[in-house]
Amino acid sequence: MLLCFCCILMARAETGYELWLRYHAIENKPLLNAYRADIAHLYIAGSSATMKIVQDELITGLSGLLQITISQKTTIAHNGTVVAGTPAGAAIIAQAGLDNDLKKAGGEGFVIVSKITAGKRCIIITANTETGVLYGCFHFLRLLQTGQPIHALHIISAPSVSLRMLNHWDNLNRTVERGYAGLSLWNWHTLPGYIDKRYIDYARANASIGINATVLTNVNANAVILSPAYLEKVKALANVFRPYGIKVFLAARFSAPIEMGGLKTADPLDEEVKNWWKEKAKEIYKYVPDFGGFLVKANSEGQPGPQDYHRTHADGANMLADAVAPFRGIIIWRAFVYSNDNPEDRHKQAYNDFVPLDGKFNSNVMVQVKNGAIDFMPREPFHPLFGAMPKTPIMMEFQVTQEYLGQATNLVFLAPLFREVLQSDTYYNGKGSTVASIINGSADNHALTGIAGVANIGNDINWCGHPFAQANWYALGRLAWDNELSSEQIAGEWLRMTFTNNLQFLKTALPMMLESRDIMVQYSNPIGLHHIMNTGHHYGPAPWVDNLKRPEWNPVYYHKADSTGIGFNRTATGSNALAQYFPEARKQWEGMNNCDEKFLLWFHHVPWRYTMKSGRNLWEELCYQYYTGAARVKKMQANWKELAPYTDRQRFEQVNMLLQIQYDEAVWWRNACLLYFREFSKMPIPSQYEQPDKTLEYYKSLRFPYAPGN
Amino acid sequence: MLLCFCCILMARAETGYELWLRYHAIENKPLLNAYRADIAHLYIAGSSATMKIVQDELITGLSGLLQITISQKTTIAHNGTVVAGTPAGAAIIAQAGLDNDLKKAGGEGFVIVSKITAGKRCIIITANTETGVLYGCFHFLRLLQTGQPIHALHIISAPSVSLRMLNHWDNLNRTVERGYAGLSLWNWHTLPGYIDKRYIDYARANASIGINATVLTNVNANAVILSPAYLEKVKALANVFRPYGIKVFLAARFSAPIEMGGLKTADPLDEEVKNWWKEKAKEIYKYVPDFGGFLVKANSEGQPGPQDYHRTHADGANMLADAVAPFRGIIIWRAFVYSNDNPEDRHKQAYNDFVPLDGKFNSNVMVQVKNGAIDFMPREPFHPLFGAMPKTPIMMEFQVTQEYLGQATNLVFLAPLFREVLQSDTYYNGKGSTVASIINGSADNHALTGIAGVANIGNDINWCGHPFAQANWYALGRLAWDNELSSEQIAGEWLRMTFTNNLQFLKTALPMMLESRDIMVQYSNPIGLHHIMNTGHHYGPAPWVDNLKRPEWNPVYYHKADSTGIGFNRTATGSNALAQYFPEARKQWEGMNNCDEKFLLWFHHVPWRYTMKSGRNLWEELCYQYYTGAARVKKMQANWKELAPYTDRQRFEQVNMLLQIQYDEAVWWRNACLLYFREFSKMPIPSQYEQPDKTLEYYKSLRFPYAPGN
Repeated sequence: MLLCFCCILMARAETGYELWLRYHAIENKPLLNAYRADIAHLYIAGSSATMKIVQDELITGLSGLLQITISQKTTIAHNGTVVAGTPAGAAIIAQAGLDNDLKKAGGEGFVIVSKITAGKRCIIITANTETGVLYGCFHFLRLLQTGQPIHALHIISAPSVSLRMLNHWDNLNRTVERGYAGLSLWNWHTLPGYIDKRYIDYARANASIGINATVLTNVNANAVILSPAYLEKVKALANVFRPYGIKVFLAARFSAPIEMGGLKTADPLDEEVKNWWKEKAKEIYKYVPDFGGFLVKANSEGQPGPQDYHRTHADGANMLADAVAPFRGIIIWRAFVYSNDNPEDRHKQAYNDFVPLDGKFNSNVMVQVKNGAIDFMPREPFHPLFGAMPKTPIMMEFQVTQEYLGQATNLVFLAPLFREVLQSDTYYNGKGSTVASIINGSADNHALTGIAGVANIGNDINWCGHPFAQANWYALGRLAWDNELSSEQIAGEWLRMTFTNNLQFLKTALPMMLESRDIMVQYSNPIGLHHIMNTGHHYGPAPWVDNLKRPEWNPVYYHKADSTGIGFNRTATGSNALAQYFPEARKQWEGMNNCDEKFLLWFHHVPWRYTMKSGRNLWEELCYQYYTGAARVKKMQANWKELAPYTDRQRFEQVNMLLQIQYDEAVWWRNACLLYFREFSKMPIPSQYEQPDKTLEYYKSLRFPYAPGN
Repeated sequence: MLLCFCCILMARAETGYELWLRYHAIENKPLLNAYRADIAHLYIAGSSATMKIVQDELITGLSGLLQITISQKTTIAHNGTVVAGTPAGAAIIAQAGLDNDLKKAGGEGFVIVSKITAGKRCIIITANTETGVLYGCFHFLRLLQTGQPIHALHIISAPSVSLRMLNHWDNLNRTVERGYAGLSLWNWHTLPGYIDKRYIDYARANASIGINATVLTNVNANAVILSPAYLEKVKALANVFRPYGIKVFLAARFSAPIEMGGLKTADPLDEEVKNWWKEKAKEIYKYVPDFGGFLVKANSEGQPGPQDYHRTHADGANMLADAVAPFRGIIIWRAFVYSNDNPEDRHKQAYNDFVPLDGKFNSNVMVQVKNGAIDFMPREPFHPLFGAMPKTPIMMEFQVTQEYLGQATNLVFLAPLFREVLQSDTYYNGKGSTVASIINGSADNHALTGIAGVANIGNDINWCGHPFAQANWYALGRLAWDNELSSEQIAGEWLRMTFTNNLQFLKTALPMMLESRDIMVQYSNPIGLHHIMNTGHHYGPAPWVDNLKRPEWNPVYYHKADSTGIGFNRTATGSNALAQYFPEARKQWEGMNNCDEKFLLWFHHVPWRYTMKSGRNLWEELCYQYYTGAARVKKMQANWKELAPYTDRQRFEQVNMLLQIQYDEAVWWRNACLLYFREFSKMPIPSQYEQPDKTLEYYKSLRFPYAPGN
């Protein structure tokens, strides 16, 4: 009787703070008994900070999941012993005959095997490094959390890319650019003296999905982070993260030598400037001996950069690369650039700027490319830079925070977006030259490889605002670890760990997640529309905006609706951005008639009465897509309501309320966009649809001066 | 065996989210058995939203504390029944012979009695209103939480003042002025669709300590809150708070008729302006039928107000009062004013402005006065306005957020400060005319009475930043309910509920809390020093600042250190601020030799070699106080470390780290202030003290551009 009370209270109110590491008791009794037969004792080889974390995690996880007291042993004397450690940490592991497996696992991978050891049935979790053991331990717990069989394990797992990174766009005043989950986690004011438990839990959550690097500060950078007082704070965070295998990077402000060093220039070829950065790097490494390096946004959206001095991006990157090279640091240089005065289609500018620089970057420089050429749109063709700079290690930049995908109020699972990009074929080296193969180094044998995600993490109790937004953090980590994982696999894992293994629940929740991004595209940016959101905060639709001072900031620049049609002609008769793709890739898009309709208006200006594959004309199709998208959100609402029996009340209600907001926003997108585009198509919204109950003027009048993330 | 796991996990990690409502199992077995003998069944009269809350709270509380399943009954058929409801809700309560008790309890008070009812031993929790029952239910649970006997209860409790209010200085972009616990709780962007569970938990926590009113928005006001879109959001919050007995107020921007209404003036005597506010009030009451009214900061620190039109504060307040009067709303008009161009001692300005207006305010206007005449200093004599406006209901404004008292990093329990003010004797009507008697209406028979506290609540998981800062929220509520409660009583309750009833723990923790404010005064503003903090963010010491454009913003204005001495002469030979006090009150301070040394430099410019009661000269005494204050923080650290066995690890570590920061800050205050004042005293810091290891220039060079709350 008594034991139930805590459990009841916990079941009634799950805040989401625990993420996917809840370790609730396994409810399936036969499975539980099977696990208990295989897991009763623990043998931990080593006592370093990392191995202490392995030990704590296994004890917490196993005692929670199996509801047993795990007995810790110093020898292997019982069947059902879980052994964790490196070969260097224990002779019994070194002698377990796992050399070949460990070779395949590499520096960060791990091996999990069921094996008779010292005459006893054991499960060995091992790796060449302690960080690898930690990853293996989380993977092992994940098997239990998701109800997988463990009686004959033989798992070898190695990461697809070497840098699996979060980019925090966090400002020093704790606001987060494009953050929708509260303030920055980093409470700079109370650092270094106060170590918020969240720092530890953040590191733990990242380690559980293989994330091994974090850029603490916004790419729209502030030089103050490089001051001694702040480096003390950075050091404190790095010390927390280190045993979890996480390296700290910082965003560098290119003009720091002026702002902080008192120099007159930040010219990357100036000796004083070079020297300032060298001294600064030396100083940083005194605080953080394993500092990862700098992430740099230069000459983009007002940020200073080498072009201010008529130098190239390579000049700028290499100057910084020289400064961190003695300490094995790297420079990650962003390719997200477009210029004030460049009349060229923004789609083409990064390619034009960077392709000529291929081969000119130092060996410790990576170029970080957003998944698409515009800016993290709900659906965007892959960036033409993938495959176009074979001599340069290219790092992927995904956006986990949902700037353009419903921010904190929409349920949108991003793994299908990430997958769509990674699996896209660039045809760089013939068919099958996927973006993934370029990113993970297999195409060009680059040793520096990486995937970064712009973080969606803040100080909201549940970390990410929307309960389902946690899944996007999870997906980034899992896909960075294994580029081949399917969206189904990732969503399934996450749902089981975060909610329940109940099959009735999964039957409904899993397809809901998997379709959610497609639904969002449909009610906001169908048929290849893009960048038609509101100005500044990017919340909601505003396709009518045409008065911003830079042309490429205006939605009308992108949709180009007029009396003849809608869409951006990027073929040879237009901006010819398509020419930046390899011919085979280009081919799938360049003909209006055979272009994948998902990207039709991305690449073509299409007549309003153009006949779509559905038989509807373009205007009718636009209406169909917007109405279908909104209707599918209504269906999501109904589906979710059926899941009440399977989830705790708090998160059920949260998602329930948020889906209602999402439906209202979908209707807003639908009505505002169709009323606006109708002015050009001159055709009515077909009468079978519920007509908008507000006017275009009403939608134009809406203002959100305090929308978050701006 | 099994039941222990959740409990262990919970014991290991308490976030503080639960505040003082944790309801952990009672550990004292004899006491637990005694409680169980008296409490086994529940009879709830009524099913309104409020009574549903009463029911949930009693079930949650009793099942957690007593670890039993409370059986709910529809009749009283068993001994050990807890009965909750109003006389109107159940005949059995109406007939229980409690009429006299209920009369004493009044509208919001409650009665808790042990009584044979329907032949059974019952505990009746009743009141004239359901909100009163809710307060009674929390009080009853508090008795159990703090281990009080309950076998023969006869409690009648009624609040000292009718408005027990929080003032949130929360901006619409969710920053909080003088907030040190994260963002504003109010996520305006997702309101009204998304009801964060924290809104409910906030209301519940407030109800548990009798707080019945909240001003949602900053007194440095934004007219946008009065727009329909935002009133929808306010309505959603008001709907959450209503069943908890909490009324919503808003800060009114005096110039809203211009900014929002498009009028050319906000002159309170202008008919269009009057009408605009009348219509606006009518509109607000459509959204929130029990809207409390407006809080107004006018003609203070740049805020617009009636003086912009050569009208008085009374003109402004009465105009607004007329607008809300039809709906029984009230206006709370702040007396915190000091003027740009007034050369008079800032100490005197509010009194000078407001005393002539006594009797000129409408009957639904209250004047809200800060506890002291300067600004929430660590120690400040009571405001001379208390007792000086007998015809006007005066509301107390305390600051719960620790703007000047160590912000989020110092453990400073404020009940002693609140008590010191409330118990101060104004001599308004002879000896014993305490500030409390003026505030609670007993001195002048005012019906409108109230105490407000500037909230220290944000979206940090533990609500208030510092784990002990929760105690200040608690203290505000408890003292507003009962002006006579001692600091010991409040601290004891809070510690028992928030940490443990363990006597060893209390023996150390209770005195630590009770002394903490005195210690803070000692290491930062001893002997009556005040307003010598850093500019803007107010973090840390900066007594040297003398270059701000308004004289009364500069620390040098307040300490007036020079070669002859230090302190502000507010006697007849100086600014004569003392003349604003009643003669008997004035007398305790006006002679340098008999002035309470706690306020010596507040009222006197004292020679450096003046002999203090200790026998030390003033300079030596200043050194003694600063060094003693810092040393006492070190003692707090040592004391806290002894308490590890009695508290969960997470909060133990939090407080441990924060006490180290507090010690570092105490040393900073001590060294910076003494090094600076030494320049005037021309005497050394006595050699028995550890000498500062940094220079005055170092302390002057410190900058905190991103300190919170600014």
